[in-house]
This record gives sequence, structure tokens and C-alpha cells, in this order.
Amino acid sequence: MSGNSFGLLYCVTSFGESHGPAYGGVVDGCPPGLALSEADIQKELDRRKPGSSRHVTQRRESDRIEILSGMFEGRTTGTAIGFLVRNEDARSKDYSAIAEKFRPGHADYTYLQKYGVRDARGGGRASARETVVRVAAGAIAKKWLAERYGVKVRGYLAELGRTPIPFQSWDEVERNPFFAANGKIVAQLEKQMDALRESGDSCGARVNVVASGVPVGWGEPVYGRLDADIAAAMMGINAVKGVEIGAGFAAIAQKGSEHGDEMTPQGFASNNNGGVLGGISTGQDITISIALKPTSSIRLPRRTIDRHRSATTIETTGRHDPCVGIRATPIAEAMLACVLMDHALRHRAQCGDVTPPVRLGR
Amino acid sequence: MSGNSFGLLYCVTSFGESHGPAYGGVVDGCPPGLALSEADIQKELDRRKPGSSRHVTQRRESDRIEILSGMFEGRTTGTAIGFLVRNEDARSKDYSAIAEKFRPGHADYTYLQKYGVRDARGGGRASARETVVRVAAGAIAKKWLAERYGVKVRGYLAELGRTPIPFQSWDEVERNPFFAANGKIVAQLEKQMDALRESGDSCGARVNVVASGVPVGWGEPVYGRLDADIAAAMMGINAVKGVEIGAGFAAIAQKGSEHGDEMTPQGFASNNNGGVLGGISTGQDITISIALKPTSSIRLPRRTIDRHRSATTIETTGRHDPCVGIRATPIAEAMLACVLMDHALRHRAQCGDVTPPVRLGR
Amino acid sequence: MSGNSFGLLYCVTSFGESHGPAYGGVVDGCPPGLALSEADIQKELDRRKPGSSRHVTQRRESDRIEILSGMFEGRTTGTAIGFLVRNEDARSKDYSAIAEKFRPGHADYTYLQKYGVRDARGGGRASARETVVRVAAGAIAKKWLAERYGVKVRGYLAELGRTPIPFQSWDEVERNPFFAANGKIVAQLEKQMDALRESGDSCGARVNVVASGVPVGWGEPVYGRLDADIAAAMMGINAVKGVEIGAGFAAIAQKGSEHGDEMTPQGFASNNNGGVLGGISTGQDITISIALKPTSSIRLPRRTIDRHRSATTIETTGRHDPCVGIRATPIAEAMLACVLMDHALRHRAQCGDVTPPVRLGR
Amino acid sequence: MSGNSFGLLYCVTSFGESHGPAYGGVVDGCPPGLALSEADIQKELDRRKPGSSRHVTQRRESDRIEILSGMFEGRTTGTAIGFLVRNEDARSKDYSAIAEKFRPGHADYTYLQKYGVRDARGGGRASARETVVRVAAGAIAKKWLAERYGVKVRGYLAELGRTPIPFQSWDEVERNPFFAANGKIVAQLEKQMDALRESGDSCGARVNVVASGVPVGWGEPVYGRLDADIAAAMMGINAVKGVEIGAGFAAIAQKGSEHGDEMTPQGFASNNNGGVLGGISTGQDITISIALKPTSSIRLPRRTIDRHRSATTIETTGRHDPCVGIRATPIAEAMLACVLMDHALRHRAQCGDVTPPVRLGR
Repeated sequence: MSGNSFGLLYCVTSFGESHGPAYGGVVDGCPPGLALSEADIQKELDRRKPGSSRHVTQRRESDRIEILSGMFEGRTTGTAIGFLVRNEDARSKDYSAIAEKFRPGHADYTYLQKYGVRDARGGGRASARETVVRVAAGAIAKKWLAERYGVKVRGYLAELGRTPIPFQSWDEVERNPFFAANGKIVAQLEKQMDALRESGDSCGARVNVVASGVPVGWGEPVYGRLDADIAAAMMGINAVKGVEIGAGFAAIAQKGSEHGDEMTPQGFASNNNGGVLGGISTGQDITISIALKPTSSIRLPRRTIDRHRSATTIETTGRHDPCVGIRATPIAEAMLACVLMDHALRHRAQCGDVTPPVRLGR
Repeated sequence: MSGNSFGLLYCVTSFGESHGPAYGGVVDGCPPGLALSEADIQKELDRRKPGSSRHVTQRRESDRIEILSGMFEGRTTGTAIGFLVRNEDARSKDYSAIAEKFRPGHADYTYLQKYGVRDARGGGRASARETVVRVAAGAIAKKWLAERYGVKVRGYLAELGRTPIPFQSWDEVERNPFFAANGKIVAQLEKQMDALRESGDSCGARVNVVASGVPVGWGEPVYGRLDADIAAAMMGINAVKGVEIGAGFAAIAQKGSEHGDEMTPQGFASNNNGGVLGGISTGQDITISIALKPTSSIRLPRRTIDRHRSATTIETTGRHDPCVGIRATPIAEAMLACVLMDHALRHRAQCGDVTPPVRLGR
Repeated sequence: MSGNSFGLLYCVTSFGESHGPAYGGVVDGCPPGLALSEADIQKELDRRKPGSSRHVTQRRESDRIEILSGMFEGRTTGTAIGFLVRNEDARSKDYSAIAEKFRPGHADYTYLQKYGVRDARGGGRASARETVVRVAAGAIAKKWLAERYGVKVRGYLAELGRTPIPFQSWDEVERNPFFAANGKIVAQLEKQMDALRESGDSCGARVNVVASGVPVGWGEPVYGRLDADIAAAMMGINAVKGVEIGAGFAAIAQKGSEHGDEMTPQGFASNNNGGVLGGISTGQDITISIALKPTSSIRLPRRTIDRHRSATTIETTGRHDPCVGIRATPIAEAMLACVLMDHALRHRAQCGDVTPPVRLGR
Repeated sequence: MSGNSFGLLYCVTSFGESHGPAYGGVVDGCPPGLALSEADIQKELDRRKPGSSRHVTQRRESDRIEILSGMFEGRTTGTAIGFLVRNEDARSKDYSAIAEKFRPGHADYTYLQKYGVRDARGGGRASARETVVRVAAGAIAKKWLAERYGVKVRGYLAELGRTPIPFQSWDEVERNPFFAANGKIVAQLEKQMDALRESGDSCGARVNVVASGVPVGWGEPVYGRLDADIAAAMMGINAVKGVEIGAGFAAIAQKGSEHGDEMTPQGFASNNNGGVLGGISTGQDITISIALKPTSSIRLPRRTIDRHRSATTIETTGRHDPCVGIRATPIAEAMLACVLMDHALRHRAQCGDVTPPVRLGR
């Protein structure tokens, strides 16, 4: 399996570049019989869509999903689901000035050095626009997980730059353009973003994702661990520089008597483990937190070099998200859903005959 | 590929349980012609070995590597390298009292629920003793990476519980039982550990790992990213709850003008990216930081349940590391080395004909 | 990797159904810098195209390839190559009468039983029309193999039903609609096919494929053998029931003194092994022969059952190839090319530093 | 996954060389709870064992299986099953004379050229002795398939050189050293083999393998086809040069009206397809036939070259099977069992919720 596919049994393959004709993907391994429509996927794509508020890139894309296969009379058939999302608003001239230079913090340099060639238009394959494929694949996974196991995968913006956003309620998340789980802070975030945009700079963010209702037992020791696959999926999202599960880095300062989640007949008394022990789901919420770096494309001038190794400066004036973290919530949810679905299938393959001996709860 | 293997081309397969006759592994895909001896691997195993100081588990294992295949006249032949490490000091009676209960923070519960059966002796397959296989595989990878590309993979303990350990020099790392890159702090760490052990509790830790000399171009967009595979490898180490690359979680509070590493004809002016951009190595140091939770096996009594869902308490009195992070440095190095080697081979496969167009440096 | 992908490093993913909007594929792992145009692929698709003579299905498809990604300024970039081939002449009404019955020799029954649902229009996913994806992927592989290593992959029809077609010259192959390497026999084949079509029946065929110029050393013992991967690729072509390499089934009757290919300083004295020994290419021609069963869709009435398990009969009157083997030559070539390219990359990954010690030939 | 592993979910990894200390393997993905003992595996190893009659190699190996992991109290735990088979009777001096020459029909030349180095002792990794690992893995698969689904995997020798061996009954197979399903022909086979051995030559063979009781629905279109994976598994056995399923090469001469298996409410009326349609099992017997070439190691002198490309001759006087096909029956059964088990798990993963709509039979 080469670099544009992930997942062992629920396998997602992706193609497309920012200024090519289309992005597309193939979802392989989806169980047959799942009721699925383009609307189910579109709903998730719309959450990720550019241009939906003044705080994100102003590129105008309808991001319309077109399913090409794997469906019959409104249900999945078990064969490969191919789909396309056309690029509509690619303005390559925006990028012509910078094709010869390497943008700091971007993959311009590494792509050229790896492949000896690069498609510089809009970041080419390295554009975060590729995440449209992930969100589509994740939408299918979310639907199946919800219908088959009652699993719910949700996320929210937990920090915008230096501003923490206290969790208030899930209901708030879809009511503001930031995926903030807190309505009271939205005005402040808007002000912060307006100032940032004006300054020509960008900021980082933290996104939290939670999967509820995951049954005990998903994940494979010792290398195919659920948390390991989640970590890969999260770190594989553009701009992510850190991944935590459960207590995360706070676990360093914890004592064992504090960290180890005690058990009672009703269940776990706490969730420092984040829903995974020994690489296998515990049945608790799976709680993930990721750090996203500030957007690398900024208007402020920066030192760099060109293809001929000459020193120069660069200002990136295309249409960019001043904080990529804002649109990252649906992407992180999608990646988590894909990993969970893959492991649901893997678990069923090996342990389909096992009834978990212990039944926690009331 | 099931859960006990990792790596696409440099593929490591592992087996063994804490109280079974032996651990073993198969390293597949190693290039032929590498000079290799058991001593090369033993050196790394000895760094990880239990019982090497009073601060780690007192289980006495010589951890002797026995290579069974893949070698001829002191060189690798390109065929699968099979090896064994015998268990010598397994005392299953230590565990008899706890076989019926679930230790908080352990995989006892999840293994039983997943498989319907568990080998409770010494943690069975979930024991951190499995990392002996990773260290052996990593030793081969380290040697090849060093000889073929001049890559050096090194780590150190960066925090012990709440105590940060400032980096002083690589030379210090092998001179103390903590892998601290700082000699002055060792006495304090010893005191801290003695107190901890006495209290019957445990603490968390942070380990940093650095790979130097990695050429530009390793890693595959968009899912086979180098940083994604590293994240999986790190999160897949027992007790790890968080992974960072480069600026990591600090990137949340950074501005784009601060985070994006500027370039000059001599190279990158900083390394917030941690040696990876767009999933591909930049040629800079690859800098990884991981959080390890406190050991779950502690003497202090904790609330839990037994297999029949009855409430009970548990005290774990076997021989355990009061801080698993102390022995984690060679393990994290090994995992990083394996991932790098895998990507070195993958890169050579696809881009073996590419000469990177730009040559940074003096 | 699920069932709609194949290849470890040169990885082909396929989607699409006979009467859906399009077939498509993703070729991942292609080295960057390969000059490639849609015409390069179209040329091969045209060889496989339906409706090109009266001896094959009369479905009218232009089979136009549309490349969607992975290219920049006429060269591959090393990222995933996505492509589409639209269905233009799908007449689902042709099939309405048979949607409820299982056609003998078809996958109708097995798809329904496996998935609980089936897209019966034109055979759905089981239609041989899916091979358009393979031929496209094979065209890219052929071009790279030829340019990088001078490898040539060619095939021909060796038997049409009971009629053997003696090999005369490669030049003949493209001059007749049968891919017969023999011009003199074409008139007889046409007569045979006309009679067959008139009778409402179908016949089997043998196709031979040869790869010349393959360097010594491709293939991996002991399970990733070149011949094993070729066997899978060939048996994975619709209608194939047998695969031979080298002497094939004739080896049963051979003595060791006859079969084992002697060596001289100029090379091998014979090629009973078919270009592979121990799973690794010898540097000789790789010679493959496959058996294709007669088309299952025939006009003659046959006994079968319907979805309700009631006995019935069926006559298949859609547009079908009376001998699927006729169009199989470019497909078999494509599959062989894909496998060879995958192993070329795999070999380079592990053994990129090896110079073969022995140089045969003048 | 590199070359020494096969299977996606039931994954077998193998290591070892003919004259190294041991062969070993890791079986990953076996469901938990399977009752398993070393005796279950030993039984199958004994069928394959060298030295069991005068018609096979006289190397004396007890081939004792030693399970090292993955078991607890007589049942599989779901973790990796590691095992060893020690080499006891390796006489490397037998081979010293030929280490510098390439034996015709052997992998000597290809290994050296691929890897630049080769372990010439007893054929090294290319020795058919590696099949001990396959037979062990297959024994576990056979047991699970039988207990979970009632699947039976059996084989027999169908041709010995030019002598066809008509199938009489399964009961005969274990009563003679040839795995002939026919007692009356045994004396003739013994005479044939005695003459062959005396002549210093070797002969080929055909082995048939049949899996009964396989449920409908196993296998994945379009590349992960059951027949494709079987073909790879069979062609991957040492000395195999051809693979057939169902009618095999005889399908070339069949008409569609003859080949396509008609269906009745009681089931299929014939089995030309060999139990697989569209890559998916039909529920009928899966019938496989393979061609094994004559042993390459013969006493008769043959022309070859040495490492320095000088012409020479070679006579191979070690202990060899005069017909490798004789011991191939348990190996082919094992490979078929492994593939079936892998697909049983894969099918359960994706289609675990599907009830096949049609129920054939009385």
C-alpha cells in the first residue's frame, strides 16, 4: 500500500491536486447494505467547505460530491465506492509569482527535493484541499458506525491561538463558524480573527475530538493498536504537530495513583487513559487532542530561497485560512471515524465469535 | 498485515509473552550485505535491560539475543532475520493473586473483553517486555542507517515526573541510569526515585528523540507521511499518551511569522517543523517528544473489580518499574530508527532516480 | 489493502460498474518524471476496446481516458494518478429480463450471496469491462518499464477454442482482430467465430504473454515470489481458469535432466523455468500462458434458478463477446506489466546497492 | 508487507535456512479460543517429513514443532503464535563442492544475483525445507476451518511423471507414501521411483487439492479474488509451474454451453468453475490442480557455470527427493487452508451482517 491509501479493511485512497480538475477518492471495504446518499456526505463536506465565513479562505468551492460507483438503489453494494469533487475556483495566477520560491513552513521544498518536480499551483498535492477526500470517507464511516454500533464522533475547537475555549455544550458547536463548543466566546474569537487577518499573520489552534459509544475491544496489540493508528491519522492531517490521547502530556506530571483509572461495577471512575488501554478500546469515550500549527501562507514578508538557492523574500497573497485549525474539526472527526471503522471490521474479523465476558454498568 | 507486524518494506513481526518461554521477532526487508553481529544488537538490548539499576524493575533477565536466520558469514543475506530472546526470570506466582482482578491502567480488562481469554501471567502479551523485540529490530535499522546514510538516532529523558531535565550534552546520556543528557541533575533524580519507590507510587516522564543526518525527501504524502508513521510508532509504545514533532503543542500559541521556518542558502533558520514538512523529511534534525504515563502497577491500594464484576481493591507487588519512562529512551530510538529505515527503502523504491535539485549548505 | 487494490509499491485501485457513470482508477507509487500523455494510455485502451470487430461485443464505447491528477507539464509528479473512463453505451434494459435469475458461469449468484445485494445491470462490478482500469494502469507500467529497463511486455492469442495458433511473428499480432501472431490463420479464425456466433454458443481460449528484457533479480522469496504474484494477477483476470509459467503443466512429464535449464557463459541453454527461479527473475524471457473459459453469456437456453430458488431457464441476449479470450491479450499484458513494475520498485528498495556479481552473455 | 509474509488477516511470517539452527514462523490473526496443541500441528508436519520412505530425501529430521507464544491453557489467545522447528541433520559438507557453481533449475544463480551474496548451504533460504513453516500454519488453519465451518481441505497425488493416478477414494491417501488416492497403483509407483532413483534422474508430478464445505461468499472482487490468492499461494510453492482451478486448461476447448455450470434448486449441476465464480466461493468444492517440476538436484551431470562465469559441469549428490511432488500434497493443502482462513476472516469483517438470501439444497 503506497502513500495515498490508508486503512487495512476500510481503505481510503485519495488523488487530486489543488488546481487540477478534481479531487477524488475510493472507499474500499464498506459493508454492503448501508443506506447512503450524496446528501449524507455533502452535509459533512459543507462543514469543511472554504468560504463559509470571513475567517477562512475565500476560495469559492461548492465541494459537490459525485458518487460514481459502489451504490445500487440507495445502498452500498460492498464494492469500491468511487467519488469526485470538482475544483471550480482554482486561480493559478495567484501562485505564479511564488512558483520559483519555497514558502517557509510549506512542503514546496520537500516535494521538489523528493520528486525532482513539483506542481506549484496552489500547493499541488500538499494543499489542505485534499482533506475533502478524508471528510467524504469519514462521512460514510460515521454513518455506518452510528447505525451499526451507535458510535458518535464529534469535535470542537479547544484553543484558538492563545485563547482557550472552554467546553460548554455540543449543541453550540454547529452554531458558530469556529466549531467552538461555547457560544459566549464567539464574539471574542471573531475580533481576534479580524485583528489577525489585518496583521497579515496567522495563528495555531487546538482541536479536540471525542468518540462516544465505542464498544470495548477494538484495536490490536501490539503494533496495530487503536491509539497508534489514531495517532497516525491525526498527525497525517496537514499542519498537525502534536497528538494526545486521554491525559496526554499532562500524564508526565501525574502519579500512578492519580492516573490509573479505577474501576467499579458501574464502569471506570475516570478517563485518563482516553478510552484505550493496551491499544484496545475500553468502552469509554475516546478523547483525542491535536495541535495545529499556524498557517504557513501569510502576507508578512519572510526570508527564503529560490530554486537556484538564492536568498529572497516572499509574501503569500493568495486566499488562505488565517488559522487552518478552524476548519480542522470536521477533518479530525473524519479521520477518527475512518480509523474506528477500520478497527471495527478488523475486530469482527478476528473476534467475531467472542462475547465479552464482563458487562459493566447498571 | 495483522497487529503484530509493522513497516511496509522494513517489516518487523513480533511474538512472545512475559511469562512464556521466549520473545522473538522477524525482521524482513533488510538490505543484504550489512555487517551484523549479535553483539551489535546486544549493545542496544543491554541499554533497555531490566535490573540494571535500583530505579527500574528488579526482574533479572540477561536478554541475550539469538539470531536464527538471515545471516551468512557475518552479513545479512536479504532474507528474513529471525531471532529469539529467552525469558529467564519469569515468576508467575507473583501474579497469581491478581489474575482474577483488573489492574487500573492496565490492559487486563481490554484483553479479556476483546479475546474472551487472557494470559494474566506478568501481563502476558501486554507486558512492556515485548519492547525487547523492537529494540532488536531498531538496532539493525540504526546500524544500516548509520552506515548507509550517516543517520544517527539518539534520545534522552527530558522530564522525570515534574522535574525537567535540561539538555546539556549527548555525552552524558550513557553515563547515568536515567538517560539524562545532564550529569548535574542525576543525584536529584536518584533521590526523587528513591522517595517514589518508598511511597509505593509511580510517575510519568517525557522522552525526546532526535534523528540527525536524515536526507531530504523521505516520507510519502498524503497518508504515508513520515510524521504520521512516526506518530504511530511512538504512540504504539506501551504507556505513551502523547507525541509531538518540532514545536509540537507549543505551535498552538505561535504566530505564522514565528513558526514557519525561514530558509537561507545555508539551510533552515530554525526547526519548528521538527524536520518534516508536508510529510517529507527536510534534511534537518527530526525532533520527537513523547509523554509516558506513570506505571500502572503500584503498591498503593486501588479500587477495581474482578472478573465477576464485584468491587474489590488491588495492590500490585510484583517487580515493576516505578517509572516506565526511564527505560523508554532506547525503545523510542528503536521505533524511530525502524520507521526511518522503512521510509529510506520506500523512498529509494519510488525516487531512486531523482537527484534533489537544490543543494543547501556551504 | 482491500479487494479493489493490488500491488505493494506500484499500487492500482479500481472502481466502477458496467452500467454506472464511469470506471476509474488510482495508480499510486509511479516514479516521478515519467513523460506520459493520455495518448500513451489511449493506445492500449483502444486495443482492448469493445466493438472493434464483429467478433467481439458490439457495445459501443469510446473508452476515452481522462487523467485527473498526478501529472504536471506532461510528466508524472510522483503523486497519485487518478483517472476516469466514462460509460457511454450502457443499456440497462438489455438486462432487465435476467435481473432475477442467476446466469450459469456468472458471478450473479456469488455476489448476491456474499453481499445480500447486487447491481445486476450489465454484470455490475463483475463485468469484464472493469479491465479497462487494469489496461490503463498497465499502460503506465509498460511505458516506465520500457524506458527505464528496456522491458517489453507482449502477448498473443495461442489457441481459439480447439484451434491452436502457431506463433509466427510479433509483427502479426496487431494486424488482426484476434491478436494472433500468425496472419495465415486469420481467415480460418474468422470463419470459426462467425459459426460460433451463429450457433449462439461461446468458446475458450489460451493467451500467452512474454516479458523480454527483465533484469535478473526481481521477485522476493519466499512468499512474495515474482511467479506467485504473476499467478495471482493472471488468475485475477475475469474468466481465467489456469496459469502456467515456462514449461507449465508439461513439466509433469519431464525428467529433471530435461527440465533443469543448463547454463553456459553465454546464458541459459533453454527456458523451461519461464524466466523465474526461486521466485526471482533469471534475466530470461518471462513466459506465461493462461486459459480463459468460454463466455458465460450465451444465447442458448440454460437451466438455472431465480432468487426465490425456483427452477427456470435463461438465454442471455445482451451484447457479449463470444470468446472473452480474444480481447484478453492486452489485459494479460497489462497485468504482467503492473506486477513487474511493482517488483522493479521492490527490488530497488531492498537491493538498490547490489551489483549482480555475474555478467552473462558475450 | 515484505516477501516472507503472506495473508492479510491470517498472516503467516516465515524465517529460516536449510542449514541454519532452525526454521520458525509467526501466525498472526488467529481467532482466540481455538483449542490447539503441538500434537495438532505435529500430525501435519509428520506427513511432510523427510526420510519417511525410501522415495523421498533421506535427510533425517524429526521436525518437532515448539510453540513459543499465543497459547494459554491449551487455547489460542488471539495474540501472535510463534513457533520453531529445529534443524537437526544439516550436513553442510554435502554442499561444499557445489557452493561455487550454479545448479541448473535451482535458485542459486538468482539469489546471488539479486542479493550479491548467498547462503549456499543446502540451498539456504530457497530450500523446500521452508515449507515446514507453511504446513504448521496450515495445520492451525485447517483446525479452525474444520471446527468453525466444517471445511475439509484434502489433497492427493494425481500424476507421478507420466503416470496418471486415478482417484479411487480419500481413504487410500494416508495409506501409502505417495498420497495416492488409489491403493492398486502403489506397487507400480514404487517400482517407477526405484528405477528413477537408480537412473540418477528425477520426475515431475501433479497434485490435486480440494476444499469441501466452504460456504458461499468467501473472496473479494476484483483483485482480492479467492482464486487469485489461491493461485499465488500455489505458484509460491517451490517447484510449482502451473495452477488450475475447476476445468482449468481444459476450459479452452469447452463450449460455453458445456462449461457454464447450470443451477437447480438443489445446487449446481456441475463444477467446471472449481468452486469460485467472480472471485467468490460458490459453496461447491474448491478444486485446485498444480504442476510440480522435476527436482533440479540430480546425480546426472549437467552443464553449468561457476561464479566466475566459467563453464563447468555439476552432479548433485546430496540427499534429495527424486520427485518433490511426492511430499507436496500436505504443503498444497496447507497453503489452500491458509488462504481460505484469511478469506473467511476477511469476509466476516465486511459481510458479517449479511445472511445469504438464497438457500440451495434439499
